[in-house]
Amino acid sequence: MTGPVAPVSFAPAVRPRIPVGRFGDRLACAEAGVAAAGMGALLVGVGPDLAYLAGYEAMPLERLTMLVIAASGRATLLAPRLEAAPARACPGVVGGHIDLETWEETEDPVDRVAGLVRHGNLARPTHLAIADRVAVSDHLWARHLLRLQAALPGASFLSASVVLRDLRIVKDADEIQLLRLAAQAADRVIWEVAHGRLVGRTEADVAREVCDRLIAEGHERADFAIVGSGPNSASPHHEASERVIKAGEPIVLDIGGAYGGYASDTTRTIWVTGGDATRGPDDEFLRFYAVLRAAQAEATHAVRPGIACERIDLVARELISASGHGAHFFHRTGHGIGLEVHEEPYLVAGNPEPLRPGMAFSVEPGIYLAGRYGARIEDIVICGDDGPIVLNGLDRDLLVVTG
Amino acid sequence: MTGPVAPVSFAPAVRPRIPVGRFGDRLACAEAGVAAAGMGALLVGVGPDLAYLAGYEAMPLERLTMLVIAASGRATLLAPRLEAAPARACPGVVGGHIDLETWEETEDPVDRVAGLVRHGNLARPTHLAIADRVAVSDHLWARHLLRLQAALPGASFLSASVVLRDLRIVKDADEIQLLRLAAQAADRVIWEVAHGRLVGRTEADVAREVCDRLIAEGHERADFAIVGSGPNSASPHHEASERVIKAGEPIVLDIGGAYGGYASDTTRTIWVTGGDATRGPDDEFLRFYAVLRAAQAEATHAVRPGIACERIDLVARELISASGHGAHFFHRTGHGIGLEVHEEPYLVAGNPEPLRPGMAFSVEPGIYLAGRYGARIEDIVICGDDGPIVLNGLDRDLLVVTG
Repeated sequence: MTGPVAPVSFAPAVRPRIPVGRFGDRLACAEAGVAAAGMGALLVGVGPDLAYLAGYEAMPLERLTMLVIAASGRATLLAPRLEAAPARACPGVVGGHIDLETWEETEDPVDRVAGLVRHGNLARPTHLAIADRVAVSDHLWARHLLRLQAALPGASFLSASVVLRDLRIVKDADEIQLLRLAAQAADRVIWEVAHGRLVGRTEADVAREVCDRLIAEGHERADFAIVGSGPNSASPHHEASERVIKAGEPIVLDIGGAYGGYASDTTRTIWVTGGDATRGPDDEFLRFYAVLRAAQAEATHAVRPGIACERIDLVARELISASGHGAHFFHRTGHGIGLEVHEEPYLVAGNPEPLRPGMAFSVEPGIYLAGRYGARIEDIVICGDDGPIVLNGLDRDLLVVTG
Repeated sequence: MTGPVAPVSFAPAVRPRIPVGRFGDRLACAEAGVAAAGMGALLVGVGPDLAYLAGYEAMPLERLTMLVIAASGRATLLAPRLEAAPARACPGVVGGHIDLETWEETEDPVDRVAGLVRHGNLARPTHLAIADRVAVSDHLWARHLLRLQAALPGASFLSASVVLRDLRIVKDADEIQLLRLAAQAADRVIWEVAHGRLVGRTEADVAREVCDRLIAEGHERADFAIVGSGPNSASPHHEASERVIKAGEPIVLDIGGAYGGYASDTTRTIWVTGGDATRGPDDEFLRFYAVLRAAQAEATHAVRPGIACERIDLVARELISASGHGAHFFHRTGHGIGLEVHEEPYLVAGNPEPLRPGMAFSVEPGIYLAGRYGARIEDIVICGDDGPIVLNGLDRDLLVVTG
């Protein structure tokens, strides 16, 4: 057998879901965390923390939606009356783990939240003294936070990640399964796009195809499609542009979205020849791609419980630096992934955090020669009990295609 | 001539853009506002304020991107090195109005921002005393704001809307043109969807068609597609579900996205008969739809410079209340629209702000009979010098279709 093979689809007809009871477990852990951290309340606005704790996904808006976990323990979701129907349908409320309250258009929801914080602490007199520490979710908008700070003038505010990071950073089997299905869907999209027509099309047109295919492969949302062709491949976060793809150049495809709430994020670099054998990759590209390929493999191979995040970064960086391309690899080696496409842990110099089984992250070194070309390879990897579990199945060798 | 006619497409082949020089004007106004408000700096993270001032649209991420307008006047955009290429290409930087600085993966961008704030004030010794007031953009994530507050411990933080709301709330001719093209594209999508097959399809399937058509009509992004059929039409912010649309029921279609950065947001209510004349709208529906139709028309008609926002709300509310449906209209009459789908001014009880020429907002009363059915009509309206300028051209009568 020679060459890479197309990824086979194992996509289920219906997206699996996190079981409703799990939200009760998560809320219990969060409540215990609030008590253990000696905080008065955890205030969770729209965003991944709310999705994690309540299973409630909503657009962040000027109308405040907020899950209040006060020291008294019972969680309350305060939502605009207009959003009552979807709020009532979220797993946290359906499962009986969260009380739903709504506010009217002419009410001030910030006053209601402040009241819940005070009341939640009044119910437990021993917590009165610590009501001055309030944690807010990382994605809460400044407009809401500033008003909450004004409404609770004695309180000091800190990040909810104090409590939630340790919960969210380790994925359970259901979460890993969603991340796996997301990764495999992204694999298929890259394969299909890489084997279609590319030369003569704009990057933006290819990006639209990527997004359409992510949806067709079961994603509920396509979030990004970096299509960096020719010199644009040297810009790691290039936006797909109106540049027309030409034969004889590389394309960095870095794509992702959400599948059952969990993120996909996969990169492959391909080379399009236009069917002209003389337009294959030049020697320099092949040389640094081989270095990159080895760096990505070695960094992945180094994954195991107990190893520091910065050490994984260093494994990739040392190999690339030894080839003389150290200055051309100017981003971290990876980022955690879950309900957010970028979350903890970050595989970056200066992060001594040891990997734990169930942590999920990208391993994605890149080499970029400004103005010329670049390459990146990215997989999603789980830290398993005995080493890495790679969720992507797509071959990592340079894919040379007609395009 | 009888019945409504299909909206004609005037969509330009290329989306118009806000001229590059306009960003210089906007920055100058913002800088003057910072000085006038006696503030040390304006800190603008990823979001609509950054799009307004720099023309830079980016995904909000854990890596901080921040436009710093210090009291010294010169604006600096601090971006992660990884985003240097798109940041450098934004109109504010291209036009020479903003200096770009990048930060490396192992640097702390919050320290850099704090340094820019301090340095910006050092350059103007007279501003030293007022560096303790710092304004932040409304969409900045709490994770960034909390760290900025810790890095500038003496400062008091307030909302950047203090300076920016008065700039953004009045639209210039280029902004109005983009809002008009966005509205007309949404009109065509609703017309096309309403005249296609609907009965037997799920709401979610129709919502996907809406999103595809918004893109096909020139939107760069489809943001929402409420498809509320039958009893779901009584939930104003219903999410398109797996419910199958049946003959003999209403559908509320409330759709929107972004066109050249500016938002569309249009609602029409239709009734699908399945081709069966006995399955038309019942008398009760026709009665309250007529009230709604009149309320939307009267509220729109009342738009003129100087009238209070709450007065527009009251015009619609009084008509609906007089019909006995006051309790069934439980949301505000409208919201401002521009770079955000919801922004100031809000047409809501308790908002005495007078309308000014160039303000843009929705006029969208609704009547909802819980568990049964509901209806809403929504147009985007500009406050003109002499009265309302309605951007949508689609007929507002109940559209009865075969579906």
